[in-house]
Amino acid sequence: MNINRYMIKDTTEKLHRLDPDDTGDLKHKEAALLKTEKLKERLAELQDILFAQKKHSLLVVLQGMDSSGKDGTVKHIFSGINPQGFIVTSFKKPSLEEEAHDFLWRIHMKTPPKGYIAAFNRSHYEDVLVPRVHGALGQEELKRRFRYIRQFEEMLAEEGTTIIKLFLHISKEKQLEKIQERLHDPAKHWKFDASDLQERKYWDDYQAAYEDVFKETHQEKAPWYWIPANHRWYRNYLALSIVVRTLETLDLSYPKLDDPTPDISELISPRH
Amino acid sequence: MNINRYMIKDTTEKLHRLDPDDTGDLKHKEAALLKTEKLKERLAELQDILFAQKKHSLLVVLQGMDSSGKDGTVKHIFSGINPQGFIVTSFKKPSLEEEAHDFLWRIHMKTPPKGYIAAFNRSHYEDVLVPRVHGALGQEELKRRFRYIRQFEEMLAEEGTTIIKLFLHISKEKQLEKIQERLHDPAKHWKFDASDLQERKYWDDYQAAYEDVFKETHQEKAPWYWIPANHRWYRNYLALSIVVRTLETLDLSYPKLDDPTPDISELISPRH
Repeated sequence: MNINRYMIKDTTEKLHRLDPDDTGDLKHKEAALLKTEKLKERLAELQDILFAQKKHSLLVVLQGMDSSGKDGTVKHIFSGINPQGFIVTSFKKPSLEEEAHDFLWRIHMKTPPKGYIAAFNRSHYEDVLVPRVHGALGQEELKRRFRYIRQFEEMLAEEGTTIIKLFLHISKEKQLEKIQERLHDPAKHWKFDASDLQERKYWDDYQAAYEDVFKETHQEKAPWYWIPANHRWYRNYLALSIVVRTLETLDLSYPKLDDPTPDISELISPRH
Repeated sequence: MNINRYMIKDTTEKLHRLDPDDTGDLKHKEAALLKTEKLKERLAELQDILFAQKKHSLLVVLQGMDSSGKDGTVKHIFSGINPQGFIVTSFKKPSLEEEAHDFLWRIHMKTPPKGYIAAFNRSHYEDVLVPRVHGALGQEELKRRFRYIRQFEEMLAEEGTTIIKLFLHISKEKQLEKIQERLHDPAKHWKFDASDLQERKYWDDYQAAYEDVFKETHQEKAPWYWIPANHRWYRNYLALSIVVRTLETLDLSYPKLDDPTPDISELISPRH
């Protein structure tokens, strides 16, 4: 799996040229599920070292249109790891207290401490996407926010947080299909939100806004990847691959005992 | 009172050229106390509008050598205001959780929401001063931290937080005098900390480190002021003057009722 294929390097990339049905070299769901299980085991191993070493942290930012599968991705790719070293935050509409601060305030607070993996289900990117689509912020204010985001992520990265930003890319047709699922499946009714129908009207504006986001905030230290997300099985496999491959680039190792090794022979003498 | 005199504009300023005994145009403690009381009333008025308007916030950063009077300054200049709109944070040695994040994490969390005044008793500046004096960070890492601080304060300022940074400037002799007070006055024993004696040995290094801080982090949007602090009465008067004059430059005004004014005639009819 060469994850670089999905890195948004060419930031002039237009979304309509990227195929949400893409499944890379994989043709079958079954093969993907098998590989995904292996990757989950590998992630659990890597996380154990990350947690023990307390030198690095990992932040996975998940963005995408409504129904693009952010919740499902978190659920599937992180279900095998130790919850003690994992924090997931879903950023909803800001509270009054959050709104009274700069938009990065609540984001910064939830960044992972060393040793931890954090997932953001939506993020500070909502604070540039929504105001742009609905015209709530002018061009100059948006530019400023992009600058704050670049500087903020650069700082986090330099201070030890590896950042991966995943854009879950679905087609407009697939979104409709998923909305219909939510309406018809009683186990999914709770996920239906009438405001999603409203936002769907702005589909093209959101796509253009995302293209801006990639252009303004893709950095070597905080790269964007696009994840073809029409097929859940490929979406999960690819997202997990990116997480695992990224962790493998870090110098992860279990901390060693101090030298010399403490003598515990007394503890195992008959008296103990 | 022209507060500009105390703004550290010329960032090549050497601390030994600034007189900790300076009392500006004031010759007598009594005159200063009277003016200070008036300023406290004015601050309370301005804070009331700030709180009602919820458009701006104010952050007052207090730094200075041990015993330079940071606690006393907070106590004296802010004792007249409504505690509901005021937050003071004393930044001590970081906790394990704080240490596991970037150094600005705990600082950002305590920045004032709109409508509030916040005072930092010590701050993120300790994270550049102490490592520099004790050689815990290299030149490159220090430079990076200075950059993070500039960008962070610029972001806060542009997002609505007015920042004032006050350096309380005492002489080395005055510090000794204050340490002796702490040893001899039972009401001050609790403020004595043996590690202050250790840090006093690094006096000159700290002075040089502060000069670097001014050079690296004085910005129009986040200015440094030096406060001659050998005389408590002038220190309080000057610090308070800077706070009041700064608030007066903001477009503070009480929010107006919506037009038309709601009709409450029914409420005052005999039935109510």
